[in-house]
Amino acid sequence: MGKGETTRQAILDHAFELARRVGLHGLTIGRLASDLDLSKSGLFAHFNSKEALQVQVLDAAAERFIDVVVRPALAAPRGEPRLRALFDRSLKWEGGQESPGGCIFMQAAFELDDQDGPARDRLVRLQRDWLDTIATVVSGAVTEGQFKPDTDPGQFAYDFQSVVLGYHHAARLLRDRRAEERARVAFDSLVAAARAEPSTRSSGARRPVAVTGVQSTTAKSSRRN
Amino acid sequence: MGKGETTRQAILDHAFELARRVGLHGLTIGRLASDLDLSKSGLFAHFNSKEALQVQVLDAAAERFIDVVVRPALAAPRGEPRLRALFDRSLKWEGGQESPGGCIFMQAAFELDDQDGPARDRLVRLQRDWLDTIATVVSGAVTEGQFKPDTDPGQFAYDFQSVVLGYHHAARLLRDRRAEERARVAFDSLVAAARAEPSTRSSGARRPVAVTGVQSTTAKSSRRN
Repeated sequence: MGKGETTRQAILDHAFELARRVGLHGLTIGRLASDLDLSKSGLFAHFNSKEALQVQVLDAAAERFIDVVVRPALAAPRGEPRLRALFDRSLKWEGGQESPGGCIFMQAAFELDDQDGPARDRLVRLQRDWLDTIATVVSGAVTEGQFKPDTDPGQFAYDFQSVVLGYHHAARLLRDRRAEERARVAFDSLVAAARAEPSTRSSGARRPVAVTGVQSTTAKSSRRN
Repeated sequence: MGKGETTRQAILDHAFELARRVGLHGLTIGRLASDLDLSKSGLFAHFNSKEALQVQVLDAAAERFIDVVVRPALAAPRGEPRLRALFDRSLKWEGGQESPGGCIFMQAAFELDDQDGPARDRLVRLQRDWLDTIATVVSGAVTEGQFKPDTDPGQFAYDFQSVVLGYHHAARLLRDRRAEERARVAFDSLVAAARAEPSTRSSGARRPVAVTGVQSTTAKSSRRN
């Protein structure tokens, strides 16, 4: 990397951390210039406008998300193991209580939902790509015969995302110590309900959503009637 | 109401709408004074500080939420009908795409999660009250024999809240036209999995989460094996 690119990357790294803490609206050229002891004109040379800076911070966050969550998960065997890897890594990306600022995408989602413009457009595209990634992995589980043929990958992706949002809310706002456990129960229930049902698997496939506190892979059926 | 109380209420109504649009951080005494053509000193007489104003806006929002969502839902018959009324009204409260600003509690959740202080404390208390309300209604469905005795009301409340968060995200950020349909499928799956299983109900109780696009109340089982 040339010096210009190194500087640009350092600015983006700082902007990313700042946006996680204060939101994209707090990400001004003036604030960055002051934090990094750079001239405003120098920053404008790199980013042109606050909007362009926001878009580039979202892109940088997406690259990081792909490196930390998507690419390693896609290395897992196709189907349910890959889906589970994607979920595990999504929870870690959120960072739970310890991570300062939490997930930039969720923060930006609630910040930008009413604010039309390039940053919102980019965020929507990134979120759609993410939902498509989940749906594709779900389709893989269908192709592998692990999930029922009539599994709706779009619905599964929606449900997956809801569980991650719920985790974020419980872990970060409510500081609920059981947030991760609850999120895993919810995810296991989604998987269990989608699973194809050969007789050896039926106990897991019928495990009720809101009932047990154990992993579906070890749960015994509690059928009655 | 005396004149002072009427003024205070009018200020809070405006502050509530403003906070939904710009977030609690945008809710400054100066901005309110300018919007309402009141003196800053007059506003300080009502609210003392920005923090006190934020807390009172959250309280006013909670009162409204109780009027619009909780109280009417509690008028429905105990158990599943009451739970369903609570869910229906939660979706309406969000307002979906049309509502300017969306849900103040969700916006505040992602805004305040890292910002210790009185507004965050109040929001956490309100959210815990809300989760307790859901859990109590779920317990009612257990007492009525509609839900399985080992249903975990805390997990159900967590899952309910995740579905509402997912709906908010899909409807408002992604402007997904299927957001409400997807949220209803997800909710119906939670209910179906929690239901007690007399033989007349078993088809609903085993309806898979991510598979069908129809309401569980009318869904036929597609068991195979």
